[in-house]
Amino acid sequence: MGHRAGRDPRLTTHLALAARALGARRMYLHPPDPALAARIAAVGRSWGEGFEIVGVEDWKSVIRSYGGLVVHLTMYGLPLDRVLPRIRRSPDVLLVVGGAKVPPDLYRLSDLNVAVGHQPHSEVAAVAVVLDRLGGIPPASRRSRARQAIVPRARGKKIVRRRGR
Amino acid sequence: MGHRAGRDPRLTTHLALAARALGARRMYLHPPDPALAARIAAVGRSWGEGFEIVGVEDWKSVIRSYGGLVVHLTMYGLPLDRVLPRIRRSPDVLLVVGGAKVPPDLYRLSDLNVAVGHQPHSEVAAVAVVLDRLGGIPPASRRSRARQAIVPRARGKKIVRRRGR
Repeated sequence: MGHRAGRDPRLTTHLALAARALGARRMYLHPPDPALAARIAAVGRSWGEGFEIVGVEDWKSVIRSYGGLVVHLTMYGLPLDRVLPRIRRSPDVLLVVGGAKVPPDLYRLSDLNVAVGHQPHSEVAAVAVVLDRLGGIPPASRRSRARQAIVPRARGKKIVRRRGR
Repeated sequence: MGHRAGRDPRLTTHLALAARALGARRMYLHPPDPALAARIAAVGRSWGEGFEIVGVEDWKSVIRSYGGLVVHLTMYGLPLDRVLPRIRRSPDVLLVVGGAKVPPDLYRLSDLNVAVGHQPHSEVAAVAVVLDRLGGIPPASRRSRARQAIVPRARGKKIVRRRGR
């Protein structure tokens, strides 16, 4: 929430890449940024599909109509370690993050307000920690339709490219 | 590594805040950025000490003289799940991250090259996941000399300010 398309987009790009790499299926981006969504879609065509960005004008309707647990990540919330069992019980989870100033309504509309440490933080880090706690790091083999994939190595870089794509 | 002080500093700021919030003691920043270090030091005066940024010109000497395990986080490395036990055995760990282009020497000078998923990623997320796997989320009470602290809440915000500071 509160993405500023006019500014350097690296922070939101990092948020999208981290969510994708750690197994999220979708990112609702408020406000929409079609150029950023297109760049992340291109990452998917190269490195494997299964993640999309959906631009959102009306964030309240997304939260109200979501069919799973809505978890707002904020340094003011309940400790992650205490509420993690409850989050794990929900088959679908929507993590909500914003910059320093989020609308006060967000605290009320979310099912849970959760802190990944009660310190000034990065929303990229907070999302990454929660996704890792929920599902771990997805194995490379899980990605479908990737044009290329990494062969893990102790030193250096190795990429295999797949034919016909 | 490879911080670009002239550009939007939010990404490196997020990296520092995430490292601090998840229990790191020090960030070596290459190249140095005194303004950024000062902003993070101000966060420490407000929210608790125990984290510092040290500006670095010669990154190779930092890695060569480091007394613990040097772990370069890269999507090309060995899977975190496989090498985590080895990282946990070291009392001191230096995590090294950079942007898209890091010097090839870094792969050779590091003790381990480790991937937090073999996908395009965020270095903020990668550092956060490893720190969480190593030490978990530090309890709020661990911070010393904080002028203010958060009282965890299910809804809204509550901060207590300490007298005499």
